[in-house]
Amino acid sequence: MGRLCFGVDLGGTAIKLGLFDSEDGLLESWEIVTRKEEGGSLILDDISVAILKKIEERKISKEEILGVGIGVPGPVTSDGYVNSCVNLGWGRFDVAKELGNKVGMPVKVGNDANVAALGEMWQGGAQGYQHVVMITLGTGVGGGIIINGKIWEGVNGAAGELGHMPVVYEETETCNCGKKGCLEQVASATGIVKVAKRLLNETDKPSSLRRVQYISAKEVFDAAKNGDELANDVLENMGEYMGIALANVASVVDPEIFVIGGGVSKAGKILIDLIQKYYKTKTLFSTKNTKFALARLGNDAGIYGAAKMVLS
Amino acid sequence: MGRLCFGVDLGGTAIKLGLFDSEDGLLESWEIVTRKEEGGSLILDDISVAILKKIEERKISKEEILGVGIGVPGPVTSDGYVNSCVNLGWGRFDVAKELGNKVGMPVKVGNDANVAALGEMWQGGAQGYQHVVMITLGTGVGGGIIINGKIWEGVNGAAGELGHMPVVYEETETCNCGKKGCLEQVASATGIVKVAKRLLNETDKPSSLRRVQYISAKEVFDAAKNGDELANDVLENMGEYMGIALANVASVVDPEIFVIGGGVSKAGKILIDLIQKYYKTKTLFSTKNTKFALARLGNDAGIYGAAKMVLS
Repeated sequence: MGRLCFGVDLGGTAIKLGLFDSEDGLLESWEIVTRKEEGGSLILDDISVAILKKIEERKISKEEILGVGIGVPGPVTSDGYVNSCVNLGWGRFDVAKELGNKVGMPVKVGNDANVAALGEMWQGGAQGYQHVVMITLGTGVGGGIIINGKIWEGVNGAAGELGHMPVVYEETETCNCGKKGCLEQVASATGIVKVAKRLLNETDKPSSLRRVQYISAKEVFDAAKNGDELANDVLENMGEYMGIALANVASVVDPEIFVIGGGVSKAGKILIDLIQKYYKTKTLFSTKNTKFALARLGNDAGIYGAAKMVLS
Repeated sequence: MGRLCFGVDLGGTAIKLGLFDSEDGLLESWEIVTRKEEGGSLILDDISVAILKKIEERKISKEEILGVGIGVPGPVTSDGYVNSCVNLGWGRFDVAKELGNKVGMPVKVGNDANVAALGEMWQGGAQGYQHVVMITLGTGVGGGIIINGKIWEGVNGAAGELGHMPVVYEETETCNCGKKGCLEQVASATGIVKVAKRLLNETDKPSSLRRVQYISAKEVFDAAKNGDELANDVLENMGEYMGIALANVASVVDPEIFVIGGGVSKAGKILIDLIQKYYKTKTLFSTKNTKFALARLGNDAGIYGAAKMVLS
């Protein structure tokens, strides 16, 4: 048995915790509720209590524990400060130091999307690689940049904010970030649905989606698999912008592998094939063979990556 | 006096060499011709002879010398191999090892654009910063990515190949790289001239450029400064694509500072203002205040950066 550590994934609804062994990996995972009341001031206490209870329950001696890693839903600047997690009510403060004082162990902190990328590098879709870009296609689009096996958070904590690459020049609607034409507006689950609805409204093309009451990204993928032309147009549009965005990423950091995660990635190989088709036409010849993989850890990527911050 | 090292900038026409002191900086620089005959096989010998002669001439003892840094005009992969410098006739080989054997000292090698970025970080426009993106607007467009004070070359040596970001969707001509719509096609000196000629041919707009026999990027900037509307359109077009490209870069690596170099950067503050105007509208709010600076070392950036690889 190796040494132990805790990985914490702090979300807006639930806090996921994992106890990890440096050799055997995940030993146990559990969840507690995120109490957002009182400006989010109860959260670190709750995490601390959950960890200390687990230590007592398992009769672990403190010498066995390397520390705690935590992924938070907000930017972490290069000085280690967490810079306002709007969903939690948090402003700017040193989460690692405050949680460290409560648990009496070293704590490392990272942005949740970046931490998930590290998790996928350690035990997921990018296992065996050291230079990884993860892009997460969920309600929004996020990402994480791993260079030499380590998260690069960026000076303002904005490295890997791939959802806000300005790639859709003709976009007329405003993104949640306040800009127009972000990748997220066409490549997130929400964006896919929005583009589908737009095409359904603006064209007379027959489509099985016209009979669907609540259109989701999954419905669009399913329709495309069944040969629906309009659904296919929506996905080709998404694939082309993803190809452009990842070609841009390759020209900046030239990684070994792109890992595609988030709810949309449940579409599987069809999604990878779609993105890769456009990527290869958009990227410089020397980066055409960059690998693509699906994320494998799902919602556990956060606790794996958080633990890996402590172990590496 | 500190310790000494050599910085070498290997170009297609000339090889620039510098002798540096870790405390006092550049002590002396000189040039030799690049002999490209015999498949480029004479080049490393010539560099070695130049360095050993200088050591003898200055009566330097080998113990005083930390090593040699060299920037080469081709990709350097993450394993340290130089991967075909087409201009020199070189294939793939371990330049650091071969030159090291000849001079009998440690050698570090980097791609010339990346090495120039490191030079600007050490003693140029990005002095005092650790996380730097340099973009060089010359005949082509190149770049370099510095994270934590070190060059990130990329897995295929393509990190910082910012000239080939696919940003110009309506471009119909083919770039030197074989793709269509690269940043280089609108933002290099060549690209600026090409867009100016296109506008002169395709519109009837009056312009002082219609009276110029040989249009250069400098003529376009000069005309714009004098209020020429067509020249101004060319530069606004360039500024918008540069703003988009650097916003993309910020969403990937989120640096402290962008340094703009190359011949086009001689236009000065007008260029920075132009790019920054568009950058601020395209980038995520948290990266709006990323600094911009002009490169300061000109053609010396290469030898400075090469020396810095050895010193850091």
